[in-house]
Amino acid sequence: MFKTNQYFDGKVVSIGLESAEGRATVGVMAAGEYEFGTDTVEIMTVVSGQLTIQQPGESTWTTYNKCESFTVAKGVKFKVKCTEDTPYLCLYK
Amino acid sequence: MFKTNQYFDGKVVSIGLESAEGRATVGVMAAGEYEFGTDTVEIMTVVSGQLTIQQPGESTWTTYNKCESFTVAKGVKFKVKCTEDTPYLCLYK
Repeated sequence: MFKTNQYFDGKVVSIGLESAEGRATVGVMAAGEYEFGTDTVEIMTVVSGQLTIQQPGESTWTTYNKCESFTVAKGVKFKVKCTEDTPYLCLYK
Repeated sequence: MFKTNQYFDGKVVSIGLESAEGRATVGVMAAGEYEFGTDTVEIMTVVSGQLTIQQPGESTWTTYNKCESFTVAKGVKFKVKCTEDTPYLCLYK
């Protein structure tokens, strides 16, 4: 019914869904640093803990806390760091 | 690395993790009504959309929205309704 996916040797696991706000994944990433590519505009929300983000073309990192969101443009790569298992929601727009 | 579980014929799927706030699952439930049992105190947070809850021994239902949480006692059964795929976080205390 729901499809799960694994990335980065299972360090990131997600479940696909059709949320109230559109197509989405809810998942968790283990402590580490990751680079993701976007096929659509993505709105990511931190579900618990913190995610620290480097937007494409930027040298600075920004930290987002529980229930905070950030938007990433379509067709880019961005970097995410976290220091513990961090659940997140990703909406595809 | 992360263990996924399915309940109710795959209508509820969750991923176990050790969050900043303790042992947790992040998951999604399809539209429907479910009865869950608790082995610990559980703090559930709506990640997107709404969950409508009937606490044990109560006849009324209460609706919680995105980023809102409710607590369920240990060793009880409670009912959850949702009208679309609804991602949630559950902390075990």
